[in-house]
Amino acid sequence: MTHGLFVSFEGIDGSGKSTQARMLHDHLASEGHEAILTREPGGSPGAEEIRALVLNGAPDRWSPETELLLFTAARRDHLERTVRPALEAGRTVICDRFADSTRMYQGLRGPGLRASVDALHDLMIAQEPDLTILIDIDAETGLARAIERGGEGRFEAFGGEMQQRMRDGFLALAKEFAGRFAVIDGARAPDAVAADVRAAVMARLGAA
Amino acid sequence: MTHGLFVSFEGIDGSGKSTQARMLHDHLASEGHEAILTREPGGSPGAEEIRALVLNGAPDRWSPETELLLFTAARRDHLERTVRPALEAGRTVICDRFADSTRMYQGLRGPGLRASVDALHDLMIAQEPDLTILIDIDAETGLARAIERGGEGRFEAFGGEMQQRMRDGFLALAKEFAGRFAVIDGARAPDAVAADVRAAVMARLGAA
Repeated sequence: MTHGLFVSFEGIDGSGKSTQARMLHDHLASEGHEAILTREPGGSPGAEEIRALVLNGAPDRWSPETELLLFTAARRDHLERTVRPALEAGRTVICDRFADSTRMYQGLRGPGLRASVDALHDLMIAQEPDLTILIDIDAETGLARAIERGGEGRFEAFGGEMQQRMRDGFLALAKEFAGRFAVIDGARAPDAVAADVRAAVMARLGAA
Repeated sequence: MTHGLFVSFEGIDGSGKSTQARMLHDHLASEGHEAILTREPGGSPGAEEIRALVLNGAPDRWSPETELLLFTAARRDHLERTVRPALEAGRTVICDRFADSTRMYQGLRGPGLRASVDALHDLMIAQEPDLTILIDIDAETGLARAIERGGEGRFEAFGGEMQQRMRDGFLALAKEFAGRFAVIDGARAPDAVAADVRAAVMARLGAA
């Protein structure tokens, strides 16, 4: 294999996707497999600066369209400086969130915005993961875990209804891009979830 | 007239376009005409922050494509927060640089990039000035003025050949968008140039 495998993790807050991304990375590394763990928004020095610009400040600081352009700029930098060089060196790239998060979140923000997301993606990104692992949990469990974890106190404001819409949005993307999505039940112990994640990744690595 | 006139100024470094934009603004204000003076990149609090992110740091900090996305994000914010509200309030908007600067500079940076500039503009900006005033001077005069003014010491590095390519690029845009461009000879005393600028603007204001 001359080109690495590109694996993204998606899921609602509290789904455990970041934990699972890290566990997959540690497992591959322990087996001597070359893998990098990265995240979006961010994942390269420039993209992290754009991330800070987008996420700091008042919630209405940027319009949905301006925010979309900033996230796309961050993704382009991340792709050029981190993801593609690693893939070209034959490494597995494990990315906590990628374009599907943008599709889901921006799609919920404004009618018609999903079409702009797609057009901008085709124009300036034009890259999908080889495998997208959706860690799926019900909205109430996700909300409870996110509140327990603390975070930024914004989860309560979103509420269970928003969590449900986000879960539904990810499941709809899993149907739309069925060829690269693996939906894994996240409402179990982390080790059980991790075993399913590894099986999905090994099936792709073996096939590559 | 219920909608204000949108006037942009373009020209190479040292052309005097910023001086002319300010003189036009002051003239209109002195006649009791409601006008605002703004600039790109920047022109709104968010866009000024994006400007700082783009222009600070090493020249190769951003790829041409990432830089294009950041400039487009800044333009979208500037349009939404500064330009459109003023136009909708019936004010004349005078903008020092707008999308034509992006077309010219990015067009020179990479083959094929001009097509991305246009596609991105159509998708996320979709607004042109009513009138674009190109302050045209020969490359040598522009370079000499820019060096005299000091600035950031980058003009010498560009050299006369780059100034010539930029001048040619702007003149090509003036032909491409002949309906909204007015090309004014900038190699004269500022007051003489300003009289021509005012005549071009008054013709449009009278026609509006």
